[in-house]
Amino acid sequence: MGHKYVYLFSEGNGQMRELLGGKGANLAEMTNLGMPVPQGFTITTEACTRYYEDGKTIAPEIEAEIYEYLAKMEEITGKKFGDASNPLLVSVRSGARASMPGMMDTILNLGINDQVVEGVKVLTNNERFAYDSYRRFIQMYSDVVMELSKKRFEVIIDEMKEARGVKMDTELNADDLKEMVVKFKEFYKSELGTDFPQDPKEQLMGAVKAVFRSWDNERAVFYRRMNDIPSSWGTAVNVQSMVFGNMGDDSGTGVAFTRDPATGDKNLYGEFLMNAQGEDVVAGVRTPSPISHLKETNPAVYQQFVEIADKLEKHYKDMQDMEFTIEKGKLYMLQTRNGKRTAAAALKVACGLVDEGMIDKNQALLMVDPKQLDALLHPQFDARALKAATPDGTALPASPGAACGQVAFSAAEAIRMAEAGKKVVLVRLETSPEDIEGMHVSEGILTVRGGMTSHAAVVARGMGTCCVSGCGDIKIDEEAKVFTLNGKTVHGGDYISLDGSTGNIYLQAIPTVDASISGDFGRFMGWADEVRALHVRTNADTPHDAAQALKFGAEGVGLCRTEHMFFEADRIKAMREMILADNVDARRKALAKLLPMQQGDFEGIYEAMEGRSVTIRFLDPPLHEFLPTDPQDIAELAKEMGLSVDAINAKISELHEFNPMMGHRGCRLAVSYPEIAEMQTTAVIKAALAVKARKGYDIVPEIMIPLVGEVKELQFVKKIVTDTADKLIAESGVEMKYMVGTMIEIPRAAVTADEIAKEAEFFSFGTNDLTQMTFGFSRDDAGKFLGDYYAKKIYESDPFAKLDQTGVGKMVDMACKLGRTTRPDIKLGVCGEHGGDPASVEFFHKTGLAYVSCSPFRVPIARLAAAQAQIKFPRG
Amino acid sequence: MGHKYVYLFSEGNGQMRELLGGKGANLAEMTNLGMPVPQGFTITTEACTRYYEDGKTIAPEIEAEIYEYLAKMEEITGKKFGDASNPLLVSVRSGARASMPGMMDTILNLGINDQVVEGVKVLTNNERFAYDSYRRFIQMYSDVVMELSKKRFEVIIDEMKEARGVKMDTELNADDLKEMVVKFKEFYKSELGTDFPQDPKEQLMGAVKAVFRSWDNERAVFYRRMNDIPSSWGTAVNVQSMVFGNMGDDSGTGVAFTRDPATGDKNLYGEFLMNAQGEDVVAGVRTPSPISHLKETNPAVYQQFVEIADKLEKHYKDMQDMEFTIEKGKLYMLQTRNGKRTAAAALKVACGLVDEGMIDKNQALLMVDPKQLDALLHPQFDARALKAATPDGTALPASPGAACGQVAFSAAEAIRMAEAGKKVVLVRLETSPEDIEGMHVSEGILTVRGGMTSHAAVVARGMGTCCVSGCGDIKIDEEAKVFTLNGKTVHGGDYISLDGSTGNIYLQAIPTVDASISGDFGRFMGWADEVRALHVRTNADTPHDAAQALKFGAEGVGLCRTEHMFFEADRIKAMREMILADNVDARRKALAKLLPMQQGDFEGIYEAMEGRSVTIRFLDPPLHEFLPTDPQDIAELAKEMGLSVDAINAKISELHEFNPMMGHRGCRLAVSYPEIAEMQTTAVIKAALAVKARKGYDIVPEIMIPLVGEVKELQFVKKIVTDTADKLIAESGVEMKYMVGTMIEIPRAAVTADEIAKEAEFFSFGTNDLTQMTFGFSRDDAGKFLGDYYAKKIYESDPFAKLDQTGVGKMVDMACKLGRTTRPDIKLGVCGEHGGDPASVEFFHKTGLAYVSCSPFRVPIARLAAAQAQIKFPRG
Repeated sequence: MGHKYVYLFSEGNGQMRELLGGKGANLAEMTNLGMPVPQGFTITTEACTRYYEDGKTIAPEIEAEIYEYLAKMEEITGKKFGDASNPLLVSVRSGARASMPGMMDTILNLGINDQVVEGVKVLTNNERFAYDSYRRFIQMYSDVVMELSKKRFEVIIDEMKEARGVKMDTELNADDLKEMVVKFKEFYKSELGTDFPQDPKEQLMGAVKAVFRSWDNERAVFYRRMNDIPSSWGTAVNVQSMVFGNMGDDSGTGVAFTRDPATGDKNLYGEFLMNAQGEDVVAGVRTPSPISHLKETNPAVYQQFVEIADKLEKHYKDMQDMEFTIEKGKLYMLQTRNGKRTAAAALKVACGLVDEGMIDKNQALLMVDPKQLDALLHPQFDARALKAATPDGTALPASPGAACGQVAFSAAEAIRMAEAGKKVVLVRLETSPEDIEGMHVSEGILTVRGGMTSHAAVVARGMGTCCVSGCGDIKIDEEAKVFTLNGKTVHGGDYISLDGSTGNIYLQAIPTVDASISGDFGRFMGWADEVRALHVRTNADTPHDAAQALKFGAEGVGLCRTEHMFFEADRIKAMREMILADNVDARRKALAKLLPMQQGDFEGIYEAMEGRSVTIRFLDPPLHEFLPTDPQDIAELAKEMGLSVDAINAKISELHEFNPMMGHRGCRLAVSYPEIAEMQTTAVIKAALAVKARKGYDIVPEIMIPLVGEVKELQFVKKIVTDTADKLIAESGVEMKYMVGTMIEIPRAAVTADEIAKEAEFFSFGTNDLTQMTFGFSRDDAGKFLGDYYAKKIYESDPFAKLDQTGVGKMVDMACKLGRTTRPDIKLGVCGEHGGDPASVEFFHKTGLAYVSCSPFRVPIARLAAAQAQIKFPRG
Repeated sequence: MGHKYVYLFSEGNGQMRELLGGKGANLAEMTNLGMPVPQGFTITTEACTRYYEDGKTIAPEIEAEIYEYLAKMEEITGKKFGDASNPLLVSVRSGARASMPGMMDTILNLGINDQVVEGVKVLTNNERFAYDSYRRFIQMYSDVVMELSKKRFEVIIDEMKEARGVKMDTELNADDLKEMVVKFKEFYKSELGTDFPQDPKEQLMGAVKAVFRSWDNERAVFYRRMNDIPSSWGTAVNVQSMVFGNMGDDSGTGVAFTRDPATGDKNLYGEFLMNAQGEDVVAGVRTPSPISHLKETNPAVYQQFVEIADKLEKHYKDMQDMEFTIEKGKLYMLQTRNGKRTAAAALKVACGLVDEGMIDKNQALLMVDPKQLDALLHPQFDARALKAATPDGTALPASPGAACGQVAFSAAEAIRMAEAGKKVVLVRLETSPEDIEGMHVSEGILTVRGGMTSHAAVVARGMGTCCVSGCGDIKIDEEAKVFTLNGKTVHGGDYISLDGSTGNIYLQAIPTVDASISGDFGRFMGWADEVRALHVRTNADTPHDAAQALKFGAEGVGLCRTEHMFFEADRIKAMREMILADNVDARRKALAKLLPMQQGDFEGIYEAMEGRSVTIRFLDPPLHEFLPTDPQDIAELAKEMGLSVDAINAKISELHEFNPMMGHRGCRLAVSYPEIAEMQTTAVIKAALAVKARKGYDIVPEIMIPLVGEVKELQFVKKIVTDTADKLIAESGVEMKYMVGTMIEIPRAAVTADEIAKEAEFFSFGTNDLTQMTFGFSRDDAGKFLGDYYAKKIYESDPFAKLDQTGVGKMVDMACKLGRTTRPDIKLGVCGEHGGDPASVEFFHKTGLAYVSCSPFRVPIARLAAAQAQIKFPRG
């Protein structure tokens, strides 16, 4: 016997998700549990993989095996495929290992044809039902298998309704539907050039292929990318004998959850519709009744269903989402799966199940998707108001949460409006560091350009502010303070609303409700903290962010970017003075002005963190980022500095770089201008001494040198740091330890990490830059071709969002191993955006890092992800 | 006993270069050979390293050891340091492991003071000599040890000569010199605040320190970088008892080579001056006599010298460069070393020594510096004319050879002038791809901006055209056709001359002589080819370059850059049409125009290479490089294409990249626009089929996909290539194999090379880009800070010129090893500029690559370097 590609439901079980898909495995499991499941078989995910390997064809031996199982199914059901006197009709549904609701295709009523329909009529004594089933099948089959859109058939229905003078499909009678079937078949032939297939086996094979094909349709590919599902998994196909909820008033169909998916409350939640098929529920023509009504109308079935639901939840130890059909008073279970739920419900269910003794804490921790926690930390739209609104556009969900406010077209305007007590949404072509303050006062940020890792997105996530980015459909005129989106025009001051979790843009006001962290949150996160081995720090540049992160459970600051402080209005001047200085003395003079400001910032952060570790990274960006580009700003600057415009322009052109990403930045600045590192060291040490004196915290400053690629670079800068720090500490008369370490973000640093560790007391992986350098593409430019890469399945996920473990991960792993060879106790952490991505956190846990550091709003995510990683891959 | 830091000459030998330096080892060896060497001792290079480790101080135990050896020296010579009645005077000279002529410091007559000078007077019965020695010592000591410039003493000499009414130093008498010593000492005190040191031991320690310090002076650091000498080597110090060539007419001094260093002819070559010290020879006040004259004036000494010279050459088995002094009729040998020689002489000497049976071929191959060969392949200045000329400026020696011609300020002008039969030197702010044709017709190229790896430099080296780049001293006005350099003004049409080997710029005409490859060249290179294991290919984009490289011994083309062909006037139009196309069909139409041109180019190269391997790389640069930037050119293009200027500008802005180096280029273009790869494959295969049909060569096309970072990228593009190629070959009815491989130039490709090798039949390391990505800096921007890196000794050499073996080399090695795990017979080569750098070639040999590929003019260098690598590190 060859490889087995098909399983009867009775042959499988709930553990066989990989092979049978989630739906197939659960149908098998319910069958094993003796529940009333319409029988059938599952074609495995391996058959799907074979289909793609074989150039999108189904191998003859697999086709034969399908027919063999079809025969078994006929035997079990006592019905026969294509036999008008006792016809077997089936549904054909996709079912992947992970649930991908609505992403792939389904076909119902398969097996019907010109003869069979007559048999159905006789058997059911319901001609209307028979022809309605047939016309539905023609529509679905044409759409799913032949890619002839369902909607094109609606025209025929509409014409017929008009001719008959009726409004609803249900008003058409059996004869109408019979005529409609004829018209559908004619339309099918005229469009596709062949007759509608009458051979049920041909129908079946067409449907199976269509399901396999749908694994790779655009929305499925997109969904997989968003949810980290590998394309190699493939989908299974479930062929199940049909049961009909539309056979009369003693039939019906419904869906239900064992607990409320919105709140997590423990009571059966769902709805049903009598004399209907699943489609009708979705179509929303008739209003379904709450599941509790079933108790009154059909207490026996209701009681049976409650028992099954209870049994299923206990069996799966999780909230179940079930589909059922009642055919002539008999209950059938069509599906069960772990139910999707809101973040709040997820926590409540997890805590509830623990309290009920059904699961332990570790199992509870594994039940909640860390990414979901994010929703609990941000404002959300009022659910009712949202239901009434339609999005006017959509773009990238760059930073989660909901926002509603009046449009401002510049940072200055946003500040003015906010000061006047208005709620503001900042709309920009793209944001730049000068916009920081304006972004800070805004409820939400909308940009025309830029991806998930653009300036706007990164900063907004850091702030926890809602952001929708890269909305190319917007035509904006910032000067005239107006933008248009899909035909609608918005002026400054108009209300708009943004959903940063979906990317939806609403050109109207939708009220929001503030984030509320329920009691379950703290309890649940406490369990996570007990379990995890990985520490979680935060990336924070201001006392405000640091305090925010502390509330979210951060154990320290893993990355404090000193340059962000230099963009503020009162500081940028001194910074520019420093840059325009043409000798060391002038530079020192300008640096002396920056010193107290920088020291003040650090004191604020040290105080906010109450003695916890704070890693301060020295100046990183190329200096030209601090100079103006606009001619008017340049003229102003020239005046301010007492220089000629030509002199400023000469400096700007001198600092111009072809590839600023790979230019004069990071520690290269300190090599050229050691006095910058000297000033920054002074600020760090003096701040630490001051806060220690004031508060008594035992601060151990951590100074981090960026962009090191060669140990001698680090040696050079480190010497400036230690010379300066040792002198200051000696002068203070106080004992203070401090550490000097480096970012690992240049490939050369990773491959020579053994050398670098001789000088570095810690490594912090800057996985953003490391990803850019390892792939050889710039985050700012990759947007131009990453779309092609996803479309052509070269990349499955955004390497800036989810760490590329094969390439970049190998660099990280190599650097850790090499670093430990020369400094066994080296402290290892990561401070790239990946520190807040669950899959990446798991990788960092396995690689043996001491901590991850991420933006404040991702701290809870990282805490839970770290706990899950420890449960799955325990380390000492 | 502690570590030994000092060796008597009689304790050392010629093998101890690492410890004693070249000079010290050779003095020891001559001593061992029984030759007349003034005795002394050598302070080791380890003492120099200690000096730097100890914060630029000499450890007490080393100082003690020096005094101990000083005592031994006194015993040997029978003289006493500081003893006026029988004084020991010494010279203190540097001596590194590798010869660094003139880079470090020397002090003569050390040990003299107010008492000793009187003793010298008595002993020599020559007061003038005594005081002349003293005043010279004061000058040298002040200059070298105290950094009080020698020149400032010249003022005192000049005043005295004026006062005495004489013109020459030699006209000053003993009293004058006695007075001068007083004045010198006064000046010393007034400038330095201390008396001139009278303690000979203090003098000695000062001098030793100064020599150690001079190891790190700016010109020594620069020289080391140019000659790949690590700063860790350090210099030794030789303390030798003085002998005097200026003690009368029976004394003298001279230098001589055992063979002619210019031609390599076998006859004693050199010159000498009676009654003089070495300084006087250098000063050029009196004209030395040819060494042959010594035979007449002092036949005994001459005979002795000839015998010594012969013995030394036989002993060292190489041409010797010797210094000698005759003191009162007695010959002393002061130094011997392997003589520097011209490239032609190097070959002649090597061949001569083989023919004389003194060395074998392998030894001969090791004697010649591969880099020297370059000089044989380019025009040189007429030596006599050059002697009379003074450079007016100097910049980077970007491409070797000499050039003389009339200045053109644009490529178009250069072409016009060349067509009119003029010899042209192209002077540009910087060059860009559009200048190619103008560069081609020019004798030499001079640019104001750009480093050793700028466009001008790379292209010029490829063409073998002289280029001096990055002359920031030039103020240029290309519009007005004029430039100024150090106060002189040059107009279009004026003659200038460039030396691309030194970077010298002459604002005058200096005649050049064409390259002549002597018979020795072919013979010598034949030996290299017999020995080497590494194959040598060339980087060539045109049939002309390919043919040139073939003459220089290339065994194939390792890199044919297809985009260089697209910049030519008739092609850029079709290329731009392709870029501006907004759909696949329009793009295909434009590509169809490019196809026959591209195919023609490939046919030309296949024919030129006569069936040898040719690796063709697919389109690599970002598309915006092909679009104009000048508004006028944009307007023209718009007209040509029938588009609006706005449309062109929109495309340019759409294609703009923040970091073009890390942008939409390489295989990323083929992923977005598969039709480009299709066209290029068609051109390659059709060209190969055509040339095979015409000439019968058994061509196996090698198609190389650039910038691969992920195996699926390669898979995707390879499928386009194989689909296209297989179809064409099948249609042709001819059998033809072909290979598809990839560049390894992205770090991710190196660390995932095992995956990539599953698809790639060969790897070619693009070490230029790999260096940029591994270091994380762009070649175009690094110039801004590399200077600081050299100054601060973070980097010792330009990683773009000499492969960084620690970092980039590790990537290469890793990729080779990983690649072989999945494809054991994978073909490995390198096609970056490093393929022509001897140190890098040695690394590639050791790593086990099959071939290196470099620009045509570097092919002979690579051949010899490969032979040397095999001799030093034989591989199977």
